[in-house]
Amino acid sequence: MANQKAFQDYYPDELSHCYGCGRLNEHGLKIKSYWDGQDAVAVVEPMPYHIGIPGYVYGGLIASVIDCHCIGTASAAALRAKGRDIETNLPLRFVTASLHVDYLKPTPVGVALEVRAQVKQIKDRKVIVAATVSAKDEICARGQVVAVQIPEQMKPNSNLS
Amino acid sequence: MANQKAFQDYYPDELSHCYGCGRLNEHGLKIKSYWDGQDAVAVVEPMPYHIGIPGYVYGGLIASVIDCHCIGTASAAALRAKGRDIETNLPLRFVTASLHVDYLKPTPVGVALEVRAQVKQIKDRKVIVAATVSAKDEICARGQVVAVQIPEQMKPNSNLS
Repeated sequence: MANQKAFQDYYPDELSHCYGCGRLNEHGLKIKSYWDGQDAVAVVEPMPYHIGIPGYVYGGLIASVIDCHCIGTASAAALRAKGRDIETNLPLRFVTASLHVDYLKPTPVGVALEVRAQVKQIKDRKVIVAATVSAKDEICARGQVVAVQIPEQMKPNSNLS
Repeated sequence: MANQKAFQDYYPDELSHCYGCGRLNEHGLKIKSYWDGQDAVAVVEPMPYHIGIPGYVYGGLIASVIDCHCIGTASAAALRAKGRDIETNLPLRFVTASLHVDYLKPTPVGVALEVRAQVKQIKDRKVIVAATVSAKDEICARGQVVAVQIPEQMKPNSNLS
């Protein structure tokens, strides 16, 4: 996917400062999400200090990657549902209404994590996305995000779609 | 609370590397939780780069502070429920089985956030803790953590309680 643009690469600059997925946040995780058929996938390599118990990834980081990956997926899915092309249309930027994570087993640190999302529902301004986080093909956590299209008062630039 | 020890200050060194609350993780958030009557409180000041949309705190950070604060609260509450004193007993270290966060309104960046938790249930090795995150006395997010006492295979040192 190295030569493919991620969903987040289409966000306008004003909306690209997110600590989780903003390409312009130099301190952040820079999560990048791509379609893989009907699923959306991101691969994340936590830093060695992103641990909870030594040897295992911090639960807050797992929540963070599920959050940003599902929000990116909601954005791309909402555009696709309208028959609009992400290449030529500004993405519809979503925020998180709720986030749920079940931690199924300890997630080892030092390996790439695959975050795989599926759109469960698209309705008006709301998209529900479910995701798994896997290490070495084993699912370590499952999550669900309820995403809503960004409220007007949160937009840094009112010209955005 | 400056001269009071936080719950996390009682964790043994081997369990103090958490990115969210470990006093020995130099990159982390170093969340510190204290009793305030029956509630447990932590005050967190996100960094300027912990943003989602410009001006507002990143949802993953809010999930992280709820997670660590509730886990610390579970640890202290489980000890208290056994009639054991945190000053003289090793805390019972918990991990997160599930985490749920409802984002009620945008959380402004640049202000101290109060995370306030209440223990909802203590049963065997499981503690359920609910929390709110407030900015300037307004509740911006509500969360709930199901905490379970750390499984044997995750303990970095089997001498721990």
